[in-house]
Amino acid sequence: DYARSLNPSDPFSSDPERHPVLRINNLKPFNAEPPPEILSESYITPNVFFFKRNHLPVPRIDPESYKLTVEIQGPNRERGGALSLSLDDLKNKFPKHTVTATIQCAGNRRSDMHKAKQVKGLNWGIGAIGNGTWSGAKLRDVLLAAGYSPDDANWARHVQFEGLDQDVAGTTYGASIPLRKAISEDGDCLLAYEMNGEELPLDHGFPIRVIVPGTVGARNVKWLGKIIVSDVESSSHWQQNDYKGFSPSTDWDTVDYKTAPAIQELPIQSAITVPADGAIVDRSDEEVTLKGYAWSGGGREVVRVDVSIDGGKTWKIAQLKSSDKEQTAGAMAPPPGQAWAWKLWELTVPLPADTEEMEVVCKAVDSSYNMQPDSILPIWNLRGVLSNAWHRVKVKIQEEQDDQ
Amino acid sequence: DYARSLNPSDPFSSDPERHPVLRINNLKPFNAEPPPEILSESYITPNVFFFKRNHLPVPRIDPESYKLTVEIQGPNRERGGALSLSLDDLKNKFPKHTVTATIQCAGNRRSDMHKAKQVKGLNWGIGAIGNGTWSGAKLRDVLLAAGYSPDDANWARHVQFEGLDQDVAGTTYGASIPLRKAISEDGDCLLAYEMNGEELPLDHGFPIRVIVPGTVGARNVKWLGKIIVSDVESSSHWQQNDYKGFSPSTDWDTVDYKTAPAIQELPIQSAITVPADGAIVDRSDEEVTLKGYAWSGGGREVVRVDVSIDGGKTWKIAQLKSSDKEQTAGAMAPPPGQAWAWKLWELTVPLPADTEEMEVVCKAVDSSYNMQPDSILPIWNLRGVLSNAWHRVKVKIQEEQDDQ
Ligand SMILES: [Mo]
Ligand SMILES: [Mo]
Repeated sequence: DYARSLNPSDPFSSDPERHPVLRINNLKPFNAEPPPEILSESYITPNVFFFKRNHLPVPRIDPESYKLTVEIQGPNRERGGALSLSLDDLKNKFPKHTVTATIQCAGNRRSDMHKAKQVKGLNWGIGAIGNGTWSGAKLRDVLLAAGYSPDDANWARHVQFEGLDQDVAGTTYGASIPLRKAISEDGDCLLAYEMNGEELPLDHGFPIRVIVPGTVGARNVKWLGKIIVSDVESSSHWQQNDYKGFSPSTDWDTVDYKTAPAIQELPIQSAITVPADGAIVDRSDEEVTLKGYAWSGGGREVVRVDVSIDGGKTWKIAQLKSSDKEQTAGAMAPPPGQAWAWKLWELTVPLPADTEEMEVVCKAVDSSYNMQPDSILPIWNLRGVLSNAWHRVKVKIQEEQDDQ
Repeated sequence: DYARSLNPSDPFSSDPERHPVLRINNLKPFNAEPPPEILSESYITPNVFFFKRNHLPVPRIDPESYKLTVEIQGPNRERGGALSLSLDDLKNKFPKHTVTATIQCAGNRRSDMHKAKQVKGLNWGIGAIGNGTWSGAKLRDVLLAAGYSPDDANWARHVQFEGLDQDVAGTTYGASIPLRKAISEDGDCLLAYEMNGEELPLDHGFPIRVIVPGTVGARNVKWLGKIIVSDVESSSHWQQNDYKGFSPSTDWDTVDYKTAPAIQELPIQSAITVPADGAIVDRSDEEVTLKGYAWSGGGREVVRVDVSIDGGKTWKIAQLKSSDKEQTAGAMAPPPGQAWAWKLWELTVPLPADTEEMEVVCKAVDSSYNMQPDSILPIWNLRGVLSNAWHRVKVKIQEEQDDQ
């Protein structure tokens, strides 16, 4: 039935089925996010609800014949010395590690930026983020097996990834990360073959996705085909001419992609998932529970979330959750720089008596005491990435309507 | 003459002389900062102008009899196995390393916060920051010499530092940093005996100061007497009950120091050093050169500084300088996470024709694309630390006055 559904004139006909609740931002390639309230329903985002951000058609890869190539392009290296690993090799020749890490698209919350002033890109809401448990081989272990030695740090600065997804001209998706992140014991980069205890889904990179905790989704390359230790960054469009931040004064006439660094670690972020913008709450309920998520890149832990119900004039401190269970006070925090997973937050507030509209605002603080910027226009950029100003939703408070 | 000047009834009588240009925030203990324009005059801040932030009287330590104790407090360790190192040992038994790193006090720019709403603390302007070149033994090398082994990471989380400065009751200054920062090859922590090529000055910790690049000044303990690898943070007042960030809603009645993490890495910061707030520029000059500094903690490089002359409505991009020389285009950036030094910035703008007052604003961006918060009140905290909202100065533009 899968083979029957293939349409040779449509490269996207091999794409898998998706959950109907997803909000589709683009069909081909498929880009979709869950409704906000699903994000705060469980600490781990279920695979079917996890945002899908595809740049190209989903490739169908035969797990039996799949090979991952690992190449170290040193000045003194013999070429052709690349390591080639089957899926079985990755599963059986390397210890299996599991990491809980949040992945966020650089374009998450772009719609907020677009509303303030037009940007170019997929119109993501607040759902281009999810928290998963990833299992696989450590990238570090695989690089060492491929012959990486500490001396290579003298010339190598980057680890490039090539996807097996490609456009009609044969161009594949590609990205790179700093070598130090890839090779560090503490970097926790994985070549994942499982997502939330299940086989990695087709939309999320089956059979292998590189997980780069704390780093923008765009570098967590799916359908991984090749790894290259190199002195240069990936030459791909997405590394060189996309996924970079610019000043609000930079427009499409003046933009020079060489002047900005590729986005790697993401800044502090938070959003309100419940209630939705425009929701109506019943005055007779007397109180309302506000929910959301907060996360920061680079393994920086979220240490506080401030929530306002008066548009940012006064603030209360939300309760943070690092699991679906009750927090145990003695639970050991992750070591500094290894807090890869988001926190869900919650705050129950009495409904204010003197108003029919509440403007709910949230802002988070990470372990380096980085704060979110207050407003959008000063961080506006032409591609609408890095949209992390305070999140705001408006909620109406209404008296219960009598039917009589 | 030094001995003659000592006054037994004044513990501060042994303090050294200071440069008269420093602006004194407190005399005993001595706390002072340079005038802002001195900060942007040279990429390396001269020792005499470098801000002095003392918590206690400056101790006079005999370099001949000085001993640094290094203790590893493991569960399976014999007590009393501490390493004791003389100043000569530190200089001759360990390789000498040099690191250029900016040190900033947690209270830098507190006066801006105090102006918005009262806080408790020394009223620092924008000068509680400086950029120095530090030379000494690597903390990592000394910890390894003291018997630290990778297995210790299973129980140890912190490295504590005790100063030799003490109050009349004998309480010494103390602080701690995460073990990972202290032991990492890339952390670049030093036991410094030189500052800018000179012997470490008395005010800066003679004979030994621990330099913790990317980390708040308070953890860069001066007059270092003891290092302890431990499972717990320093129990000192300054680690436990000071140097922490809180919500704007936390006041002296509700503050619970246990709920907030000790400040370690500092967030993105920038300030305008020239012109000064309230300066008058001459209309006939036609243009004005704006100058300042920008820095971020955790080794995150400053990648852009945006400057506005209309109060933040529109922005221009400043030129960044990483030395006093002309920037060479091919100069290699520090590896990610090891950009310890600030950037000076400069921007020459035409004087606007239509106004007699310019509001100059600056905001910086680091390599994790962290941005400064727009305004002060939402980051206000009762101790006035972490004051890193956009910096603003007002400048008057006047027609040249004719004397006739
Ligand atoms: Mo993305
Ligand atoms: Mo400080």
